[in-house]
Amino acid sequence: MSLIVQKFGGSSVADAESIKRVAKRIVDARKSGNDVVVAVSAMGDTTDELLDLAREVTLLPAPRELDMLLTAGERISMALLAMAIKSMGYDARSFTGSQAGMITDAQHGAARIVDVTPVRLQSALDEGAIVIVAGFQGFNRVTGDITTLGRGGSDTTAVALAAALNADVCEIYTDVDGIFTADPRVVPKARKIDRITSEEMLELAAGGAKVLYIRAVEYARRHGVTLHVRSSFNNNEGTIVYNPKNGEHVEEPIIAGVAADMSEAKITVVGVPDIPGKAAQIFTIVGKTNANIDMIVQNVSAAATGLTDISFTLPKSEAETVLNALAADRDEIGYASLQHDDQIGKLALVGAGMRSNAGVSAKLFTALFEAGINIEMISTSEIRISVVTRADSINDAVRVVHSAFGLDGDSEAVVYAGTGR
Amino acid sequence: MSLIVQKFGGSSVADAESIKRVAKRIVDARKSGNDVVVAVSAMGDTTDELLDLAREVTLLPAPRELDMLLTAGERISMALLAMAIKSMGYDARSFTGSQAGMITDAQHGAARIVDVTPVRLQSALDEGAIVIVAGFQGFNRVTGDITTLGRGGSDTTAVALAAALNADVCEIYTDVDGIFTADPRVVPKARKIDRITSEEMLELAAGGAKVLYIRAVEYARRHGVTLHVRSSFNNNEGTIVYNPKNGEHVEEPIIAGVAADMSEAKITVVGVPDIPGKAAQIFTIVGKTNANIDMIVQNVSAAATGLTDISFTLPKSEAETVLNALAADRDEIGYASLQHDDQIGKLALVGAGMRSNAGVSAKLFTALFEAGINIEMISTSEIRISVVTRADSINDAVRVVHSAFGLDGDSEAVVYAGTGR
Repeated sequence: MSLIVQKFGGSSVADAESIKRVAKRIVDARKSGNDVVVAVSAMGDTTDELLDLAREVTLLPAPRELDMLLTAGERISMALLAMAIKSMGYDARSFTGSQAGMITDAQHGAARIVDVTPVRLQSALDEGAIVIVAGFQGFNRVTGDITTLGRGGSDTTAVALAAALNADVCEIYTDVDGIFTADPRVVPKARKIDRITSEEMLELAAGGAKVLYIRAVEYARRHGVTLHVRSSFNNNEGTIVYNPKNGEHVEEPIIAGVAADMSEAKITVVGVPDIPGKAAQIFTIVGKTNANIDMIVQNVSAAATGLTDISFTLPKSEAETVLNALAADRDEIGYASLQHDDQIGKLALVGAGMRSNAGVSAKLFTALFEAGINIEMISTSEIRISVVTRADSINDAVRVVHSAFGLDGDSEAVVYAGTGR
Repeated sequence: MSLIVQKFGGSSVADAESIKRVAKRIVDARKSGNDVVVAVSAMGDTTDELLDLAREVTLLPAPRELDMLLTAGERISMALLAMAIKSMGYDARSFTGSQAGMITDAQHGAARIVDVTPVRLQSALDEGAIVIVAGFQGFNRVTGDITTLGRGGSDTTAVALAAALNADVCEIYTDVDGIFTADPRVVPKARKIDRITSEEMLELAAGGAKVLYIRAVEYARRHGVTLHVRSSFNNNEGTIVYNPKNGEHVEEPIIAGVAADMSEAKITVVGVPDIPGKAAQIFTIVGKTNANIDMIVQNVSAAATGLTDISFTLPKSEAETVLNALAADRDEIGYASLQHDDQIGKLALVGAGMRSNAGVSAKLFTALFEAGINIEMISTSEIRISVVTRADSINDAVRVVHSAFGLDGDSEAVVYAGTGR
C-alpha cells in the first residue's frame, strides 16, 4: 500500500460542486488501495474576502489576529471536503494545522515550518481514515499561537506532510496539465515536461514559472520528496519533479524550459566610486529594507572616471522603499544618481544539461539578436541563464528562445483559464 | 479592579462598522479600570450560511466535521474584533475555544462544558490584554476534537468564563434593554425588570422568553454567576439576574413576568387503559425519540370506561417523529387514537413570590375566563403556572394576565427589531 499526499488549491474547491468532484477524486485514490492525505486551500476567493473584511476594520491588522482570521478559510474547505467524503461512505477526518502538528516559527504571515509531528494524522491513517489537513497554516509551540505560511503555503503544507509521513508521492493538483517548457499562453507550441529535476524546477520557479511555489520546491528538494504536478480536471499524467540520487546517471535534456517574469523592476545606482566595499555598503542598506533582490550586475568601470554602475532587479512593489533607503544614504555611498525602470521583462533559460554543454549562452544571445531584441542585463547560475529585456519584448523573446532550443512541440498546448492557485 | 465578562451576539458584530462600535464599548470598559474578557458569536448570518454550504455538500453532514466548519464563524469575528481593539491602541488577543481551555464532552453539535482551564486567558489578563474568546465552541480532551455547544452557546461560553475566572459580573449584550415583564411587542406596557432571581429567569426562559438561553441561566445559577442583560445600543442599566444567598431575605414581587411560547404542538393519546405503568410505557417510547417533552397532563379516567387521555406538548418540529413512534407501538400500548394539534399557545406566569401567596392560580384563571379565553391544559411548578390556549388567543392572554397582576408600566416600552441572538 502506498501513501499519497494530494494538494488541492482554492480554484479546485471553489464551491460545493467542485468540492464533491475533488472528494470523488480522493476516494478514487483510496479505492486504488492507497492511504491518502490531502492538503487543501481555502475555497476560491475566501482568503481575499477575509483580507477585505480585515481592511474594513483597520488598515493595519495585527499580524497575530490576521493569521487567526485567515485560517478560518481552510477550516471551512477542509470540513466540507471531509463531509463530502464521509457522505460517500469513506471515513475522513479534517485536521487544523495545529492538530496536524505543523510546527512553525512565530513569524505571523510568513511562518517557516520548523517541525512536523503528525501523530494524530498517523493514528487516523492507521484506523483507515482519509486525512484532510488545512493547508497554509501552522502553530508556534512557544506562544501557542496560530500562524500562516504565506503565499503558496498550501503547496508547502503538502510537501511537508509528504516528507514527515514518508509518502511515496506528493500530487499537486492544479488547473493545468503540468509544468510546460514555457507558458502555453505565450508559446502555443510549449510542451508538457514529463520529468524534471527539483533543481531545474527551482530555477524555473525562481525565473517566473507560476505553477509551483519556490518554497515548496525547496522543501521537496531538501527532504527528497517526489512531486507530481497534474490537472484536477483530467486523469492525464502530469509532470514528475524528482530528486536524482547522488551518482545517479540522468539522461537530461540540455534545456528543460523557459520562464518569464514581468513582475520586477530594475534599479541602477549610477556613478559609484569603484573602490572595495561599495557593493557591500549598497546591499547592506538595501538588505535592511528586506527587499527580495534577484539579479545583481556590476559593469566594469570606465578607467577614466574610476566610477561604475551597479544594477539590480527586485519586485516592483518594493522599488520605492529601496529607492528611498538609497536616497537617504546618498552622501555616505557617494553615487551620482539613481535610475528606476519598471518596464523590464526577465527571461530565464533553465537546464541541468547546460552544465556540460558549452555554447548555450551564445545560442541564446544569437537567437535574441536575430529577433532584434536588446539584452539589458545578463546573470548566470550553473543551470540557468537570465536576461533582462524591455517588457514589451519579453513574449517575443520567450518564443524565439523556445524555438531556438528545439523545445517546440508538434501541436498546440491546451490552455486553461486562470492560474490554479 | 473588577473583572467583567462581556458577551456580544451575532447581530452586534454583523459587519465591520458594528465590530468597531463593539470594540469601542469594550475599550470603554477597560478605560474604566476593569479587566475585560469578551465572548463573541459569529458575525450576523455566518452560521446559517455555513450550514447552507454544508447542506449543498451533503444532506447529512458528519457531526465532527460540521462542528469544525461552524467554528470558523467565531474565528472570523473574534480576530476582527481583536484587530479593531488593537487598532485603538489597546492590547487584545483572540483565543479559540480550545486555546481558552473550554473543555467539553464529545457530543458534537450539543456538547456540554465539563471543565474550563483558562490558563492562557489569565496570563493574557495578567499582561494587561483584553481577552477575546470564541463563543459557542470547545474541545474534547480525549478525542482532541473541536466541539460546539449548540443553540445559545455563546451565552453559555460567557457564563462559563465568568465562573472560571471568578468575574464580578457577566454582561450579556443584546438588542433589547433587558428582561421585560412580557414581550414588549405583545404587551406595549411591559416593564423592564431591574432585578430577577436566576430561578425565576430560568422559568421565564423555559416558558418562552427569548432573551437568554436556558442552559446559560442554569450554568449561572449553579456557579453563582451574576448576569447583567443589557442593550449594546445604549448605556442604560439592564436587568440583573442574581442568585440570592441561602437565607438571604429577598423582597420579591409576587410575579416576575409573563412568557409566551408559540413553538410547541400538543399530542394527545386518547383512550389509554387506566392501569399502572401505561404512562411509563408511553414516555419510554417517546423518550427513545429524544423529543423535548414540556408539559404532561393526564386527565382522570371516566369511571365507566376505565380509559384515560394523556396529553403532552413538545416542539412542533419533533411532533411527527413522536407520532410515528407511538403509532408503531399502538397495539402494545392499547390506545384508541392519537390527536395532533399544532395550533396551541403556551403562557407561563413566573414569580418566586407565588410560593407563599395563595390565590395566584385563581387570579390567573379568572383573568383568562373574563377575557373569554379557554384553558386547554394546566401545569404548575413551585414558582410557575403554565396554561395552554388556542394559538390565536395567546397574545390576548398575555396582555390580560400582565394587566391582572399589576405588571403594566406607566409608559410604553421601546421595542427594537430583531431578537438579538
